[in-house]
Amino acid sequence: MAAKLAAILFDLDDTLFSTSDFAQRARRNAIRSMIAHGLRLDEETAFRELGEVIAEFTSNYGNHFDKLLSRLPRERCWPGVNPAILVAAGVIGYHETKSLELRPFEDVPPVLRRLARTPLVLGVVSAGLEIKQCEKLIRLGLLPHFRGDAIFISEQIGIGKPNPKLWTTACQRLGVDPRTVMYVGDNPAQDIDPCNRLGMVTVRSRRGTRHNDAAGATPPTYEIRSFAELPPILVRDFGIAVPDGS
Amino acid sequence: MAAKLAAILFDLDDTLFSTSDFAQRARRNAIRSMIAHGLRLDEETAFRELGEVIAEFTSNYGNHFDKLLSRLPRERCWPGVNPAILVAAGVIGYHETKSLELRPFEDVPPVLRRLARTPLVLGVVSAGLEIKQCEKLIRLGLLPHFRGDAIFISEQIGIGKPNPKLWTTACQRLGVDPRTVMYVGDNPAQDIDPCNRLGMVTVRSRRGTRHNDAAGATPPTYEIRSFAELPPILVRDFGIAVPDGS
Repeated sequence: MAAKLAAILFDLDDTLFSTSDFAQRARRNAIRSMIAHGLRLDEETAFRELGEVIAEFTSNYGNHFDKLLSRLPRERCWPGVNPAILVAAGVIGYHETKSLELRPFEDVPPVLRRLARTPLVLGVVSAGLEIKQCEKLIRLGLLPHFRGDAIFISEQIGIGKPNPKLWTTACQRLGVDPRTVMYVGDNPAQDIDPCNRLGMVTVRSRRGTRHNDAAGATPPTYEIRSFAELPPILVRDFGIAVPDGS
Repeated sequence: MAAKLAAILFDLDDTLFSTSDFAQRARRNAIRSMIAHGLRLDEETAFRELGEVIAEFTSNYGNHFDKLLSRLPRERCWPGVNPAILVAAGVIGYHETKSLELRPFEDVPPVLRRLARTPLVLGVVSAGLEIKQCEKLIRLGLLPHFRGDAIFISEQIGIGKPNPKLWTTACQRLGVDPRTVMYVGDNPAQDIDPCNRLGMVTVRSRRGTRHNDAAGATPPTYEIRSFAELPPILVRDFGIAVPDGS
């Protein structure tokens, strides 16, 4: 008899969309906007410096563009320009990227659409800032596929990855046994190992993003390169009738 | 002989664009976005509640949408929806308005374009948060008309309106005598009175916005309803050769 499955929860960053690609494009557009508004620095140098700032102060720190300017000699790099203009220009460049270029991996929406027509509860368990992560879900256009009460963000819950309690909390709130829940993520140590400890069904999504070559302590139940591989797994091993994409 | 004029400084909010109109549209779009993402409240009630939040917590307070939700009964107003999704939806609605609908009064750009071709220094003295005000200037498309070192924002300078020191600091940094500087603003008490105290030339821009009917302690040197009235004043009373708009 097929194993029982009640829910599929998804990681967000680098699982539903390419966070790394997006961040690179957003930073590139921010730098270009700063240069267009008076920053006298070649694009590659500025881009590299900004990358260092983000590495040193984390991507959720809010003052990257100020820090970038703090590193540079004012007289040479923005003579006669108000630094707040440069920071605002960076912010605008970054936000316009979010507004125009935030897109899911192309195989993700059609598969989520199909899975949403099964009895499975679909949700998200993501590490990050609650408003920022929710903004991504909305802008990606993926929110309609998930159940409204199945969005779990670490900041909001007060438990961070890879603490397994993040997923036990999510399962408790959904009223499901972790052993009947599948988690799909890209990070072996942050996504796969903790869920394996809880006896969840784990799927490593491996498509060349940041953690592609990382190794975890335990192997995932499944490894996929595209979401298109999920429906056959659900049909074959869990007896779920997944409608086709038409 | 005509009086000497070296610079014209402009207030930003409700002088270069209709802050009040914009804020109403942005809040309306934020509310619509929240309702589209699951807020169960009629638009007018939600809009009125949000207006109260902003009045009570000031417009530069960053958590209006959270506060709006705090006021509402969860079980009735967003059952089964993560409140972070609603807040993110509000933020997106607000930001999209900034991106698409921030426009100067239509007479402002052609006049600034003409004034930028005179020897006058053109700049801004604005009360507010530095990045927020600079973002407005960029999005309004007005920045190219002002001298890069002539943007003065109260948060950045550490002096707020109506303290006359805000304008003396600006004049000092520009190396100009306040008596040779014209300030154009909409608020009698916050813009006109302090500049009158410094012997500046004051212009009250009065076109039906928020402070249209407010009274100050002292009259402005000039009162205008459109920026189109500025060039004739400069030609007639200050002997400035303002090129025509062609």
